[in-house]
Amino acid sequence: MTEAQEQKQSRLAALRSALEQGSLRHGHRLINSLHPAEIASLIESLPPARREIVWEFVDPEVEGDVLIELNEEVRAELIGGMDAEELIAATEGMEVDDLADLIGDLPETLNERVLHSMDAQDRERLSAILQFEQDSAGGLMNLDAVTVRADVTLEVVLRYLRMRGELPARTDQLFVVNRNDKYRGALDITRLLTEDPEKTVGEVMDSGVEGIPPETPAREVAKLFEDRDLVSAAVVTSDGRLLGRITIDDVVDVIREEADHSVMSMAGLGEDEDMFAGVLTSARRRAIWLSVNLATAFLAANVVGLFEATIEKVVALAVLMPIVASMGGIAGSQTLVLIIRGIALGQVEQANARWLLIREISVGLLNGIAVASMVGIAAGIWFETWTLGAIIFAALMINLVAAALAGVGVPLILKRLGIDPALAGGVVLTTVTDTVGFASLLGLGTLFLT
Amino acid sequence: MTEAQEQKQSRLAALRSALEQGSLRHGHRLINSLHPAEIASLIESLPPARREIVWEFVDPEVEGDVLIELNEEVRAELIGGMDAEELIAATEGMEVDDLADLIGDLPETLNERVLHSMDAQDRERLSAILQFEQDSAGGLMNLDAVTVRADVTLEVVLRYLRMRGELPARTDQLFVVNRNDKYRGALDITRLLTEDPEKTVGEVMDSGVEGIPPETPAREVAKLFEDRDLVSAAVVTSDGRLLGRITIDDVVDVIREEADHSVMSMAGLGEDEDMFAGVLTSARRRAIWLSVNLATAFLAANVVGLFEATIEKVVALAVLMPIVASMGGIAGSQTLVLIIRGIALGQVEQANARWLLIREISVGLLNGIAVASMVGIAAGIWFETWTLGAIIFAALMINLVAAALAGVGVPLILKRLGIDPALAGGVVLTTVTDTVGFASLLGLGTLFLT
Repeated sequence: MTEAQEQKQSRLAALRSALEQGSLRHGHRLINSLHPAEIASLIESLPPARREIVWEFVDPEVEGDVLIELNEEVRAELIGGMDAEELIAATEGMEVDDLADLIGDLPETLNERVLHSMDAQDRERLSAILQFEQDSAGGLMNLDAVTVRADVTLEVVLRYLRMRGELPARTDQLFVVNRNDKYRGALDITRLLTEDPEKTVGEVMDSGVEGIPPETPAREVAKLFEDRDLVSAAVVTSDGRLLGRITIDDVVDVIREEADHSVMSMAGLGEDEDMFAGVLTSARRRAIWLSVNLATAFLAANVVGLFEATIEKVVALAVLMPIVASMGGIAGSQTLVLIIRGIALGQVEQANARWLLIREISVGLLNGIAVASMVGIAAGIWFETWTLGAIIFAALMINLVAAALAGVGVPLILKRLGIDPALAGGVVLTTVTDTVGFASLLGLGTLFLT
Repeated sequence: MTEAQEQKQSRLAALRSALEQGSLRHGHRLINSLHPAEIASLIESLPPARREIVWEFVDPEVEGDVLIELNEEVRAELIGGMDAEELIAATEGMEVDDLADLIGDLPETLNERVLHSMDAQDRERLSAILQFEQDSAGGLMNLDAVTVRADVTLEVVLRYLRMRGELPARTDQLFVVNRNDKYRGALDITRLLTEDPEKTVGEVMDSGVEGIPPETPAREVAKLFEDRDLVSAAVVTSDGRLLGRITIDDVVDVIREEADHSVMSMAGLGEDEDMFAGVLTSARRRAIWLSVNLATAFLAANVVGLFEATIEKVVALAVLMPIVASMGGIAGSQTLVLIIRGIALGQVEQANARWLLIREISVGLLNGIAVASMVGIAAGIWFETWTLGAIIFAALMINLVAAALAGVGVPLILKRLGIDPALAGGVVLTTVTDTVGFASLLGLGTLFLT
């Protein structure tokens, strides 16, 4: 950390504890020395009651940018506490693409007034963005692309830019269009600085840079930026018209949200889950997930229930139940996570699924032999019966193969059904490994021990 | 998807199936129409035997860039199959920061020869980068920063750039240094295009842009880029010397790797896990994780073993065991994931941990009442005894509170011990919820049912 950063950290800590105690000096100065994303993160890390205090200190002109950086829940909470004038003031000076994201969260009655407070050009731009899904290329784009014609010289472009004044942030290229606004290619602005000014734009531009259609899903846009190391890219309609441009800062947010989504959804949480949301809200939301899991737990209990008579005779089986179930669950989720990631990266598809399945089953069998032998011997010694050792060996082998099958098959099937494998994969998988594990252990026990 | 992309997808699918069948036409042209990152992704999605075939088709001049994009395992595999001449040819034309990442993976004997094949300046640059950890600002930086002095006019800078010719990729700013190479600030290149050329660099530059110290961990660099929407940033030593610059493309890779890491490590997998690695390699690696979990499963089984006599009398307890354990595990991992993410975002710390703990326990209690009542009633009806219903109700309540405690406490304690909570959190948590769940259910059963 730089000294300046360290200082900031310690000032932040001081601020947090001052907030805890309700006393607050220099709050305004400290908070407004932070970048909007940093203010947003600070607000998110505070209990709801403290958030209002910090929010009061935020300068009106950055309020809009902070709102955009907040997660949806906290944003809605703060917006709820603002009056119309404040909200309209906050939207002033925001980039149009950010405003498009925010406007859906404003009270209906305000939308009209916000639109009214904008100039005609911005209003038109905003409605152009609002046509598209928020998580598509069209929703991500900004309308501040600087365009030039192919037939002018660089000299003319240089003069035009100087006249025009300040360029939009993260302008690394100008977009070349013809007189009908059809996209022709991109001109890297560094070329303006290094190429002969007598040359025309057409001679210097890169016409091989394809535009992104506005309907492209945000995650595909992110992949394109990642794979091609882009800083900005043109959004172009199917009939070749340049609509706007996407910049890397918005793509980075997409990547981060996507990553959050996959971690959080594995635990049945939304990626916008507010750590400090009210107890009731959180409890209600998580209860849904618990109920889904409860159903699968009952299914597993039901399987055990079928073998009550066996357990009564051989209690050792009940003792070993958790081992068979949990090893199957662990092995299965390793395969599951690997396959879910492969699907997300576009590396797993029907063509190689069979190959993967054989591989995962082989891994399962190999580890099965190692783990199951250990458990079998341990159980044999513990309960002084080698039959029991052999039974748990067999049950574990069966469950580890089932785990490999489910680990590969479940996400592929869920995906085909249009269900997010990251969200539902774990529940379905453990249902399989629990029931197969209990059924094989207790079933074999019934056959050979009673 | 654009038409061009769709075409590419279908060509890729054709290529994959051609590879499956061993026949391959137009392979060379198709493969080399892809970007290096796309070639890398294609190679990763193929079984090892097919990878060599694709690799043979890759143009020598992009081989280095493809190697860098591959995950470590696959990279090592391909490097192992290349001879010295090929490897040296592949390193030519690579960016120095990429080369620094690659060189550690080359055979020792080759390093010397690669260094020899470079010119003196590049060699010096390479060793400057190699001083730093790969996942620090110093390891991420490139040495192609273009520097200018504060006292010259923009006119002079413009002439210098034109003379210099092509600028390094993703040059959005020049860095201003004094005659001792001390960093003074940054000059956005768009300012060169829009400001009066008579002005000096000193008048136009932004001196408020702090440099990043080379020791800064990569994840903090990523946070800085995200929060401040940067495209590039200067790396500056503690005594103010400009070392190089970091560009957004490398930061995006850091963000992606970090995200991968948190998902994969929850399942005890490395983020570089190769989906198609040999069965033996994978089995060995995963066996470690299975063994760790086996130890905790035995611990849980041991707890059950203490109550054999009880289970023998009340077999219904064995039937209900999976429900108590799994509900505790699910509720606990929801809290765990939330807290781990909070820690990663820097939003959870000692100051607000107590607040969070109280909140999570409250959520646990509320959901406990809902879930435990349902289970209690269901169990009461199923086994026709309300005492059993009351016992599982109580056991679930106890376990859900334990889950909340462990969900908040475990990651904080692991972090303080210097252990990655994402890696070990899940195992420790389920150990807690399994043992507490079994102990409370069977303990209460012993007290009231026998």
